[in-house]
Amino acid sequence: MRIVKFSYRKKEGWGVLKDAIIIKVLEKDPFTSLKYSGRELSLREVDICAPASPTKIVLVGLNYRRHARELKMKIPKNPILFLKPPSALITVGDHIVYPPGVKRLDYEGELALVIKKQIKNVSAHEALKSVLGYTCLNDVTARDIQTQDGQWTRAKSFDTFCPVGPWVVPGLDPRSLTLTTLLNGKEVQHSCTDDFVCGVEKLIWFISRVMTLFPGDIISTGTPQGVGPMRPGDEVTVEIEGIGPLVNTVTRP
Amino acid sequence: MRIVKFSYRKKEGWGVLKDAIIIKVLEKDPFTSLKYSGRELSLREVDICAPASPTKIVLVGLNYRRHARELKMKIPKNPILFLKPPSALITVGDHIVYPPGVKRLDYEGELALVIKKQIKNVSAHEALKSVLGYTCLNDVTARDIQTQDGQWTRAKSFDTFCPVGPWVVPGLDPRSLTLTTLLNGKEVQHSCTDDFVCGVEKLIWFISRVMTLFPGDIISTGTPQGVGPMRPGDEVTVEIEGIGPLVNTVTRP
Repeated sequence: MRIVKFSYRKKEGWGVLKDAIIIKVLEKDPFTSLKYSGRELSLREVDICAPASPTKIVLVGLNYRRHARELKMKIPKNPILFLKPPSALITVGDHIVYPPGVKRLDYEGELALVIKKQIKNVSAHEALKSVLGYTCLNDVTARDIQTQDGQWTRAKSFDTFCPVGPWVVPGLDPRSLTLTTLLNGKEVQHSCTDDFVCGVEKLIWFISRVMTLFPGDIISTGTPQGVGPMRPGDEVTVEIEGIGPLVNTVTRP
Repeated sequence: MRIVKFSYRKKEGWGVLKDAIIIKVLEKDPFTSLKYSGRELSLREVDICAPASPTKIVLVGLNYRRHARELKMKIPKNPILFLKPPSALITVGDHIVYPPGVKRLDYEGELALVIKKQIKNVSAHEALKSVLGYTCLNDVTARDIQTQDGQWTRAKSFDTFCPVGPWVVPGLDPRSLTLTTLLNGKEVQHSCTDDFVCGVEKLIWFISRVMTLFPGDIISTGTPQGVGPMRPGDEVTVEIEGIGPLVNTVTRP
């Protein structure tokens, strides 16, 4: 099942893809119920939106063992959390804007999940029940600003620095998904979520001990080895097994 | 003028205090217009809410010269930004919850501002026109987690770690306001915003070059010297000249 969020005649809605082209429109949103309205729309007549409604976007650093080794950094005792503002959110086909003055802009392909219901202090055992499904996320990072600031927030919070999509796929097993990032068609990241330091259940448990999570919130699970720079004009693709590709082009403002 | 947000019979509204007790209710929200509805409510019959509707809460580290010296840290070349999630927001009278396992929980009294209109790449000259007004904020921080993580996000993002209020006051001059923090009635922070490394105009200019700011978003301007620990049962008060006190009590969950 592929759950899509769309904009049709300036109004947002949710649906489920019937095939490559037709959306079966939902009565409400997928956090409330997956009941169909009976209406169908063509993908061609809508604008696809990022498949979430985040009050927050929580990300985690250094969550793949080989990536930590690549950066010559010790695997942290606890997941290192950071936030992107919802203003950074874009989706498939939107442009990643290269900010003036930035010297190095990196892709970071990631598996993200969308939260289905309000949770706080959830047990690891119950954690997956609060997940609507999985999607692709590109944790775009101004690497020179990250190094300069020490704190990661500014480097990762520019408008357009959070491509997410194209849709949410429920029911995948997050313990063994292949993740691939392509730069201009060439593979630059290739890994499997079996290399996670902290699995999805434990991550949700850990984050929900800090903050209440709401329907539509996004959690991203970190990037594997192979991060690298993008230039204006480049096309970057994040693809996860069972989830369609998230393709974006980098542009000057 | 003191702009308040309130909840009355489970519905949120905005108003302006006429005196110590009476709220003149606004027709809409203060981002749209300050037109009165003609209706009045008593402060006693409503619940006061944090006077904002943030899609994001942006804070800045090390923005008072004497505080940077206190921490023996170099004043950064650019403001160091971080985010708190909206789920951390509480207001006057609410409890700050001391999370289990945290070893040191600090107050950080701050001057915050609430954004009035959507802005991106605003000039420093135009920046103050996008401010609805000023309020008090307590950047509650689990100091041991901040040190352990290196990144500040988790230490500052627990539910209840962002007391804001009690109201928004337009038209103050942010260049010379006295800020006082009291712990159980004893003064622990006392400073003036004339010690800012980066003034309010430049801060808004800087942040709006990174991210689009929306009506109701909060920017906080950093804390002065004198930060220190709180214990369950403590009462902490942040007071800024011309803005009423923001009082909260620390409790165990």
